[in-house]
Amino acid sequence: MADNDSSGSKIRYLFGAGDIGEGNAYLNSLGAAAVKAESILGCASSALKNRALLLAAERLKAEEERILAANALDLDAAAEAGMSVSLQDRLRLTPARIDSMCEGVRQVASLPDPVGDVLDGGTRPNGLQIVKVRVPLGVLGIIYEARPNVTADAAALCIKSGNACILRGGKEAINSNKVIADLFRIALDEAGLPFDCVQLITDTSRETAAEFMKLDKYVDVLIPRGGHGLINAVVKNATVPVIRTGAGNCHIYVDEHFVLDKVEKIIINAKTQRPSVCNAMETLLVHRNAACLLTKVCRDLLEKGVELRVDNRCGGVLLSGGFPMEKLVKADESDWETEYNDLILAIKMVDSLDEAIEHINRYSTHHSEAIITENYNHAREFLARVDSACVYVNASTRFTDGGEFGMGAEIGISNQKLHARGPMGLKELTTVKYMIYGNGQIRE
Amino acid sequence: MADNDSSGSKIRYLFGAGDIGEGNAYLNSLGAAAVKAESILGCASSALKNRALLLAAERLKAEEERILAANALDLDAAAEAGMSVSLQDRLRLTPARIDSMCEGVRQVASLPDPVGDVLDGGTRPNGLQIVKVRVPLGVLGIIYEARPNVTADAAALCIKSGNACILRGGKEAINSNKVIADLFRIALDEAGLPFDCVQLITDTSRETAAEFMKLDKYVDVLIPRGGHGLINAVVKNATVPVIRTGAGNCHIYVDEHFVLDKVEKIIINAKTQRPSVCNAMETLLVHRNAACLLTKVCRDLLEKGVELRVDNRCGGVLLSGGFPMEKLVKADESDWETEYNDLILAIKMVDSLDEAIEHINRYSTHHSEAIITENYNHAREFLARVDSACVYVNASTRFTDGGEFGMGAEIGISNQKLHARGPMGLKELTTVKYMIYGNGQIRE
Repeated sequence: MADNDSSGSKIRYLFGAGDIGEGNAYLNSLGAAAVKAESILGCASSALKNRALLLAAERLKAEEERILAANALDLDAAAEAGMSVSLQDRLRLTPARIDSMCEGVRQVASLPDPVGDVLDGGTRPNGLQIVKVRVPLGVLGIIYEARPNVTADAAALCIKSGNACILRGGKEAINSNKVIADLFRIALDEAGLPFDCVQLITDTSRETAAEFMKLDKYVDVLIPRGGHGLINAVVKNATVPVIRTGAGNCHIYVDEHFVLDKVEKIIINAKTQRPSVCNAMETLLVHRNAACLLTKVCRDLLEKGVELRVDNRCGGVLLSGGFPMEKLVKADESDWETEYNDLILAIKMVDSLDEAIEHINRYSTHHSEAIITENYNHAREFLARVDSACVYVNASTRFTDGGEFGMGAEIGISNQKLHARGPMGLKELTTVKYMIYGNGQIRE
Repeated sequence: MADNDSSGSKIRYLFGAGDIGEGNAYLNSLGAAAVKAESILGCASSALKNRALLLAAERLKAEEERILAANALDLDAAAEAGMSVSLQDRLRLTPARIDSMCEGVRQVASLPDPVGDVLDGGTRPNGLQIVKVRVPLGVLGIIYEARPNVTADAAALCIKSGNACILRGGKEAINSNKVIADLFRIALDEAGLPFDCVQLITDTSRETAAEFMKLDKYVDVLIPRGGHGLINAVVKNATVPVIRTGAGNCHIYVDEHFVLDKVEKIIINAKTQRPSVCNAMETLLVHRNAACLLTKVCRDLLEKGVELRVDNRCGGVLLSGGFPMEKLVKADESDWETEYNDLILAIKMVDSLDEAIEHINRYSTHHSEAIITENYNHAREFLARVDSACVYVNASTRFTDGGEFGMGAEIGISNQKLHARGPMGLKELTTVKYMIYGNGQIRE
């Protein structure tokens, strides 16, 4: 383990560190170091944390060549292992992508620091002053896939919110991640903060990942970032509290009171603008009195390459409208449950707003749903009764995003109800503490 | 199963309902009924919910005789089973206790309704109006011990916060609980709300309790209320998200800058005013320069019947001060970790504020801790660095309580960091939803 760098500090380097050890002892050492680092970071001033972030952005740009070289190793191995072209694209870093990574880190530095915000308080009749203050969660575990930009992104959000982080990225990106994490560690050290505020698990075995999910002793919260498979594995295996992110079986319901232009525009956008993401529409529900728009809308979708999976009633309307039968697939129960993340759309006819709401509350992953309507009362009822993190009237579900919501950056989108729901920014990475100022009060 | 009552409604009665079924099918039926009831309760007006609560309070008082008769059955069985006198006391209901139960329900009715509060929001540059609104969590599972008043308490808080609840009380209180839960169900029905907003698990087997903790499909959050054993069992077995409550290994640190009167008053109060509760002090840390107060304070504690478990240094000071040796027990590592919930106090000498903070952060259950000091900077540092839900300066830890904090009522005290920390009132039984008002916005 290298114990010195050009500046003479004692950062434990991660790159080339095959000798760090593995399994429980390794994780325990990371955990203990994180807790220790957090005890300083958690009380650090915004100025100091911002300094570390700006230094990290500088370092990332200055060491671009080294990052690209490490990334090339990952890409070579990925190509050799037969990784799909689209996954290779997610893994790939370029000078432009590194610029955008640096810009992201600088943006986080520019956001307001949530730590220390006074949320509530007052003075009790006995004179006790109670002040409810935002404080960091503590040690965050972030588990993600082969996207090295998440390393920079997660590290920046954690530093800004005063949380030490232990990162576990996909093994396919390990070389890229090591360099990026190390540059953050160097920047932390330069800023006068403990470098162990950011740690990367370099033992990328599945066994170690599974043990990491049970590191309750040191880790306060686990946040998985990635596809279903990853999130389900974390939820199932973890004993550390998890914030579930991501899964989005999103619905749009076209009410009987609609305006065709709005419907077309929103549906095409929600399905095709970026079909692989969690806030894309997966099921379209159409009121029977809006069935007349189906043929037009489905032709537009077909032109955009969307595969259509329809129930019998929609199928009937489309065929009567002259829609080519060979372009239709019959939907079954599993389609209502599926988040395709692809150019596929399930379509179902409903008889009422009630039926639409019931379908959504039954099949949705409670992420984002929209109603398209000109009827005030239907809009109001949909907003009140649909049980999802984000409920829209006359807008694309694609807006469920920290940036679009004005949070500046997000660590993920929660579709659970505990702690955080919807896009999670810096505030969602905090908890509270009550500070109580007395002068000798006792309870009678 | 009785399907009618004097008013002709169709409430499924719980008392005498041996034929309800058991195991999974039973729990699934409760779960499905809760979700259905919640879809109405979650959108119900405050006026309607308050009406149900006031009717419940009336019913509880009107049916006092029936409650006492059921409670007598429980008490007889408990006495026969050899239950300890103190547990029997917790199980016992009296006319005065029923009055106080009714008063509690009426108090909850008088509290502000958190549901619908607008917490945040704004209009984005594209014209989307985003409104962050408080909504109920959904279906709450409450698991508790043999205290029938918790049935009324939990049911009232859940109704007010728009959450359907499934209650699982200790089997020793089953007869009392059935009557109390039924009176709530009748009141809900009378108010025009679904009676299944409040359900009680009448199959009190351990197997059913264990299955209840895995009822993810229907239950949004589990809240255990009771001792360590119960809470640990729930945390360990549950797959439903849990809010941990209760465990309180609370510390008071006497700084070197102290005023004796304040110290004595606070220490005696925090240890002896009600030693069985979670916010009572369990370990006293004394700065070496405050050792001179030990003999006086320990004599006071001894007089109150407190057993003293001391480290060597404190023992030395006490013996030199003429304290009777036979009244001292040598503390070991396990004492620093123990929540006695009894008239026992561990005492340790420390050399610095730093050492006190480190001891607390290591051994505490992160519930409530206090510093007694006249030094401004020490107070500030203690507040910032001690990682607990409630951190006090110059006051007894006994104030950690929803009522004392002005919340009006509490469902428990959380010592976890996710979702809620410290006393949990009605607001802590809610989550949020984003309502987004557009007029055709799509994402570019």
